[in-house]
Amino acid sequence: MLKMILSGCSGTMGKVIDHCTAERNDIEIVAGIDLHTGSDHSFPVYPSPEQISCSADVLVDFSNPALLNPLLEFGKKTKLPLVLCTTGYDKSQVKALQEASGEIPIFYSRNMSMGINLLIELAKKAERVLGSSGFDVEIVEAHHNQKIDAPSGTALMIADSIAEASGKQMHYLYDRHSQRKKRSVREIGIHSIRGGTIVGEHRVLFAGPHEVLTISHSAQSKEIFAHGAINAAVFLARKEKGLYSMADLIQEED
Amino acid sequence: MLKMILSGCSGTMGKVIDHCTAERNDIEIVAGIDLHTGSDHSFPVYPSPEQISCSADVLVDFSNPALLNPLLEFGKKTKLPLVLCTTGYDKSQVKALQEASGEIPIFYSRNMSMGINLLIELAKKAERVLGSSGFDVEIVEAHHNQKIDAPSGTALMIADSIAEASGKQMHYLYDRHSQRKKRSVREIGIHSIRGGTIVGEHRVLFAGPHEVLTISHSAQSKEIFAHGAINAAVFLARKEKGLYSMADLIQEED
Amino acid sequence: MLKMILSGCSGTMGKVIDHCTAERNDIEIVAGIDLHTGSDHSFPVYPSPEQISCSADVLVDFSNPALLNPLLEFGKKTKLPLVLCTTGYDKSQVKALQEASGEIPIFYSRNMSMGINLLIELAKKAERVLGSSGFDVEIVEAHHNQKIDAPSGTALMIADSIAEASGKQMHYLYDRHSQRKKRSVREIGIHSIRGGTIVGEHRVLFAGPHEVLTISHSAQSKEIFAHGAINAAVFLARKEKGLYSMADLIQEED
Amino acid sequence: MLKMILSGCSGTMGKVIDHCTAERNDIEIVAGIDLHTGSDHSFPVYPSPEQISCSADVLVDFSNPALLNPLLEFGKKTKLPLVLCTTGYDKSQVKALQEASGEIPIFYSRNMSMGINLLIELAKKAERVLGSSGFDVEIVEAHHNQKIDAPSGTALMIADSIAEASGKQMHYLYDRHSQRKKRSVREIGIHSIRGGTIVGEHRVLFAGPHEVLTISHSAQSKEIFAHGAINAAVFLARKEKGLYSMADLIQEED
Repeated sequence: MLKMILSGCSGTMGKVIDHCTAERNDIEIVAGIDLHTGSDHSFPVYPSPEQISCSADVLVDFSNPALLNPLLEFGKKTKLPLVLCTTGYDKSQVKALQEASGEIPIFYSRNMSMGINLLIELAKKAERVLGSSGFDVEIVEAHHNQKIDAPSGTALMIADSIAEASGKQMHYLYDRHSQRKKRSVREIGIHSIRGGTIVGEHRVLFAGPHEVLTISHSAQSKEIFAHGAINAAVFLARKEKGLYSMADLIQEED
Repeated sequence: MLKMILSGCSGTMGKVIDHCTAERNDIEIVAGIDLHTGSDHSFPVYPSPEQISCSADVLVDFSNPALLNPLLEFGKKTKLPLVLCTTGYDKSQVKALQEASGEIPIFYSRNMSMGINLLIELAKKAERVLGSSGFDVEIVEAHHNQKIDAPSGTALMIADSIAEASGKQMHYLYDRHSQRKKRSVREIGIHSIRGGTIVGEHRVLFAGPHEVLTISHSAQSKEIFAHGAINAAVFLARKEKGLYSMADLIQEED
Repeated sequence: MLKMILSGCSGTMGKVIDHCTAERNDIEIVAGIDLHTGSDHSFPVYPSPEQISCSADVLVDFSNPALLNPLLEFGKKTKLPLVLCTTGYDKSQVKALQEASGEIPIFYSRNMSMGINLLIELAKKAERVLGSSGFDVEIVEAHHNQKIDAPSGTALMIADSIAEASGKQMHYLYDRHSQRKKRSVREIGIHSIRGGTIVGEHRVLFAGPHEVLTISHSAQSKEIFAHGAINAAVFLARKEKGLYSMADLIQEED
Repeated sequence: MLKMILSGCSGTMGKVIDHCTAERNDIEIVAGIDLHTGSDHSFPVYPSPEQISCSADVLVDFSNPALLNPLLEFGKKTKLPLVLCTTGYDKSQVKALQEASGEIPIFYSRNMSMGINLLIELAKKAERVLGSSGFDVEIVEAHHNQKIDAPSGTALMIADSIAEASGKQMHYLYDRHSQRKKRSVREIGIHSIRGGTIVGEHRVLFAGPHEVLTISHSAQSKEIFAHGAINAAVFLARKEKGLYSMADLIQEED
């Protein structure tokens, strides 16, 4: 049974991780880190990592970017593998975690869902195979009506990955209404649907001569990020130092 | 057996009408009108309507806006019902055909597909029922990569119909990328996918609290416009003077 | 502000109704009925209806079939409109509630979702319009992998409604693998997908010559039944005696 | 410019190949083989391969199984790469073409569409990655109402490939209506929609905990098989002896 330290254990995602871990028998939470150290957890909670004395096999973090430095210090000192699921790191922070991966195993992905990351791998393969045969790429994402940014960060991740796989200079188009011309083979259309309480849907079309291939992903709840994080923890606990991402985890399963 | 005069018989849609009519046993073409009076038709072809001497029950037109006046004159003189499928009439022409409908039956719709027009009727009903319960409307259309305008005229027809059914002032949004704010209940998102050889797809989402209702239409070929036009001809041949549209045909079937 | 009595207030759906009602300002719960009369409600809870003394405008029931008789007696005695959302009534019970509707307003539908009931109304209209033009009907439903019955009761409701709208004798086909012949125009194909944690999806295809019209519904959570029940309560509270269903509510909105 | 011999040049697919080849500038047809040696081709047509005297780089066959032996003999004698797109070979014929591939390059796939074969490769990868994480596989295919067999051969190809990738003993389920039990993790549901003039659609769902990944393919016309065959010809013309399939072509592009 792997021993996990859960950073951000009192936040929304922390609670989901706690809940999902309880249903598995290969991993357990031995300590939590959170400013809210309330007593409704089945494990001791500390306001900062350096106060933790118990041993562990891996740490999962769903807190906020401000906690990165203390976590990296703690990880390096105790040789603890770190799964960093927090979003919003700035460039210098991404550089800092890359450097730390020279000493300890670090897992970092912009999106922790297995399904989304697999979709990205499949879309890259589809682009490599179809890209030279006249297939056009379009991305459609849908989210609830309270989301203020568009397109979703995940839609941009998908577009970036396909553009890289294409080996060509691609540009993104968000609005065809404003122009009157034929589609360019160098463009990726990105469309953002907003409505109701849609949790998150992403669809990639490869539209070619007389056929369309579509890869799509639909999320029902944020629980998928928890599943991905726990899978990442199990994956990382047995790795050497280095920087790992969901693409590595998927490649290992493949 | 109904007797039909086919205007624009040598054009793309004219040939499809010819082909589709041949497969039915309730209607036949007795004469054609086209500047190209070539001999590969099973009926006589005349360069203009006034040269036609045979009797007929209905005329179907898939030619071009310039032919409207001669057709209206011919229709009024011979009391012939006219199914006008030509697109691109200007406002004065639409007014002229409305006036002519005071003397003869005239059928005019911006889109001749039964399926698309039914989709519009269903979407209007959905908006009336769900509109006051917090459902957001989004329209996604997809066409081939050679289409130069966006959104499709059909997508705008759908949006206009829903906006009217809502009884509210709605505005259309084509690009969420350029802003950073929550969706307004007064907006209809319209998204134009372009790729490959897609013939034509339209999808209307009603996204509400914890549920999404979707109505979608997929066209395989322009033959659907021919089917609609022939159905309209059969419908119009037994009507009194007046202006009719696909909505009337659908209501009669309903 | 309407006053509602909530029967089955301690069950899963009862709690959801409680939660959804709290977010509205046109209706409030004044009393509950449940064998579990625990204290975590903001209103008094009684084990049976006859013990309720406060006045109310409407009663919503999400309990179990055994409670039907006491509810009907209580409703008739106090002239209280009843929204019966419980499933699993046998034929004699359905007859009993129909009889009671001769004295009081009663609302009863096999499925309380606004979206599903609207889908049914739209599908009936589509069948009436397209049924005579060579369109084939196919229904696909998808649910989680723990559901033991197939097809879903909702898929059968949809099929029954379309068959009735067609005015023809239709039969349902669940397996084409076992035969080797062309599709009959008299058949409705019904397909049951099972997988993961899918909450509930229903899709109706009208596939005709060169075009396909699709109406689909996707449910995210059981909350949609609570929304439907509360809307039904608001609808029923101002009605005369009689039997009402979701079709009536939808027609009133339309 | 590659020189192609087209066997079955007067059949439906032969004509499509002829048409598609004319639009390319990397390959041209230098001779045809067909019992119908009519004069509407831009190349000479012979009733059997041994009468062909001109040299060529590759032969594409869309004829019928009876022609296999003469083609193999002709290929071996002239050292000509053969792209065999004919369907319906029996086991002894498949064995014969495998043996011939010991002397010349032979390309053989049960389905010649690039898109369908790519879908299969993506589905295999998805199964390998998700199969151990509680994802259920369901396949839905849709075809026109004149198709007499179900499921489609392509749906079975997809199911077989996923079953093999899973490394587990999977069984196929065509009808859940006849049973009353929970889904087994060892089953692949296969559903056959029939309606209208649908050319061919295949959809594979991977439904897991709180997320669904879907890979789907939609064909507009049989032209996709011609595109695949021509791509296979270009691929095979520069290969050594051996047996090749669409999976090899896709892997080379990847």
